[in-house]
Amino acid sequence: MRAFVLVDAEGARRAADAATARWQAGRARGPVDGMPVAVKDMIETRDLPTAMNSPIYAGWSPRRDAAAVWALRQAGAVILGKTVTTEFAVGNSGPTRNPYDSGRTPGGSSSGSAAAVGAGMASLALGTQTQASTIRPAGYCGAWAIKPSIDALHTGGVTPLAPTQDHLGVFGASLQDTWAGARAIARHVGGTPPHAGLAGPDTAPPPARPRALGRLDMQGWAETDPESRAAFEAACAGLEGAGVPVADRSSHAGIAALEALLADANHYSYDILAWETRWPLLSYLDHGAGMVGQRIHDLMAHAAAMDARAYAAALERRAALRRAVAALRVEFDGFLALCSSGPAIAGHDFTGSRSYALPWTMVAAPSIALPVLEADGLPLGLQLCGFQEEDAACCAVAGFVRDALAGHGA
Amino acid sequence: MRAFVLVDAEGARRAADAATARWQAGRARGPVDGMPVAVKDMIETRDLPTAMNSPIYAGWSPRRDAAAVWALRQAGAVILGKTVTTEFAVGNSGPTRNPYDSGRTPGGSSSGSAAAVGAGMASLALGTQTQASTIRPAGYCGAWAIKPSIDALHTGGVTPLAPTQDHLGVFGASLQDTWAGARAIARHVGGTPPHAGLAGPDTAPPPARPRALGRLDMQGWAETDPESRAAFEAACAGLEGAGVPVADRSSHAGIAALEALLADANHYSYDILAWETRWPLLSYLDHGAGMVGQRIHDLMAHAAAMDARAYAAALERRAALRRAVAALRVEFDGFLALCSSGPAIAGHDFTGSRSYALPWTMVAAPSIALPVLEADGLPLGLQLCGFQEEDAACCAVAGFVRDALAGHGA
Repeated sequence: MRAFVLVDAEGARRAADAATARWQAGRARGPVDGMPVAVKDMIETRDLPTAMNSPIYAGWSPRRDAAAVWALRQAGAVILGKTVTTEFAVGNSGPTRNPYDSGRTPGGSSSGSAAAVGAGMASLALGTQTQASTIRPAGYCGAWAIKPSIDALHTGGVTPLAPTQDHLGVFGASLQDTWAGARAIARHVGGTPPHAGLAGPDTAPPPARPRALGRLDMQGWAETDPESRAAFEAACAGLEGAGVPVADRSSHAGIAALEALLADANHYSYDILAWETRWPLLSYLDHGAGMVGQRIHDLMAHAAAMDARAYAAALERRAALRRAVAALRVEFDGFLALCSSGPAIAGHDFTGSRSYALPWTMVAAPSIALPVLEADGLPLGLQLCGFQEEDAACCAVAGFVRDALAGHGA
Repeated sequence: MRAFVLVDAEGARRAADAATARWQAGRARGPVDGMPVAVKDMIETRDLPTAMNSPIYAGWSPRRDAAAVWALRQAGAVILGKTVTTEFAVGNSGPTRNPYDSGRTPGGSSSGSAAAVGAGMASLALGTQTQASTIRPAGYCGAWAIKPSIDALHTGGVTPLAPTQDHLGVFGASLQDTWAGARAIARHVGGTPPHAGLAGPDTAPPPARPRALGRLDMQGWAETDPESRAAFEAACAGLEGAGVPVADRSSHAGIAALEALLADANHYSYDILAWETRWPLLSYLDHGAGMVGQRIHDLMAHAAAMDARAYAAALERRAALRRAVAALRVEFDGFLALCSSGPAIAGHDFTGSRSYALPWTMVAAPSIALPVLEADGLPLGLQLCGFQEEDAACCAVAGFVRDALAGHGA
């Protein structure tokens, strides 16, 4: 599957033995103590190289742990090793295969972290999401994941890409594992200052029935295959069957307005990405044009054709999107969408469409990937999107959705 | 003087020759083209090690240029080398001597950058300011400097300390050089996203007479020696002689209220610093207690005794300070203070009191060090403090102050 760039068997064994001793002595540090964790190779580790799938950084060491890694170690977690990322989380794809079909992509950019958790090789994994890099691969690989509110998990030591879009993502073998991992980070190191850190209980909050959910087709519906559409329709119907009103663009003007704002989100998001990533990407290009992949060249060409006014306009459109979402809070407890426009696509160069996962990156509010659907015999992720700073509420609704759909055989 | 950790004579010569060729061909890139620049060793450089005055980072390379370094290279600047910093810009002092008296400190943490510019070894230098690290050493070393509005100059590739306080600082041989250097950074790479970058003309705006200035004794007055007090009083009198009303705590209730808010700024600023620096400092401590200096141990002990509520309370006090400053905008065009509680102090372990320079770090608005005063035969910096996002206006007033005091022989 090639999920890992490197496995630290010796370090992991040492950490696991220490955790075992704590549990045996009745002094375990909480739900994450002893949990095996995989770390995306965009995230700094003190004792293992961080190479970002770039020849520029082969063998490089930042000589410190990223904040999230440091926090998880404090919580007793066992760092298994570093997982494959696309180049700088935005360029060339890596060698990882989808755990359900080796001819398909695991998604990206957190390819190895999603595959490792999807395959049961780790209970927890760290990823990042600047566009779609956590939710999409989680959906493709059958992993749970949360992309929390922006800055709710400290991004210190995560190589920057687009600072106003860079989120830390957490993959888990269950909703409980995912939430416990995220909270362990917040408990030990907080959010990116001045954010106090992801709020909520240290273990997943009990499932909570939402008053109502909005159904979002995002920009991805047109590219979604019939079987995946049917699975999503069935999930929405299942929730309605469980007594949860599910509004959509045809039944609710606010949802229709939000869908309209999402219609070209890919476009202005790319403006933000290109403009903000000029640094550090242009400095990487100084190593020689051949040292970075074509996608990064394309991105920098896009930036070169922009100006500060275009960037400001994109930020304003993003702000309008955030306001539209927030205005729906009075009525809704979340939104349903797919994680991707179908199950993992064939091949390994393209990591799949971002149309479903990108929007909530821009909203900067939590979204959770629930590996509860199937299409074409492969995992298909259901995405629950929440409201900014209401991560625990989003997790509670995700628990309800999980249970309701299990009850309905979805 | 030991300002430099290392000098890149060969690279500097190459860059200087290229700049000469551009000037000769009439294709110079602007006011910074060919300008010799020194870079604080907290700031990443692609081709030179970045060691942060820590044994942990001896010989370390980040393999990229910090955003500001990248931008200055685009502007044609000549990178001379890396300058001495205190350990991680917050711990042990370095070996740099004050250019005016080798028995005295250059101040810190941007010790080498201030000394290099004060001694005329560089026209421009990059520093940082999280507490007092640009304005204080500029005052001690007779350099011009600006600490701009927070995020107005991109801090990417500056090793983080306390993200909500970390500013990039620019030292210059003149106000013109300082401003041109700062603007070159903003022009080529902008501010820290989403900040668009320091606004204003590419060369220093013409001097502008302020409607009125406020005089701030800050917390430092009690520790200020009589000669330095007299120099500051003379500067205030000189400006009044030039027709600028200078209000103080005794004549203006708003200034009195502001001084009251500043009275224990050192204390709550230390809370913010300690809490925010837990990462990365605690990860550095994982290298072994002996690998970091006592000041960092003390800082982390302070953080360990805090909780998130204390941090939130400190942020709220800082916000109140910012509101009080902004409210004075209707009446004032800036504030006068010293850069430090006297000229450079004797010895090299302690880099001097932060009482004068720290407050405007917390205000997050621009402040400019003017090397226009003297005490005890040594340089004494005058500090002009401005309003957030009005960096160019602050520079214009600084030009007026410079000219007015030169006219009055101060």
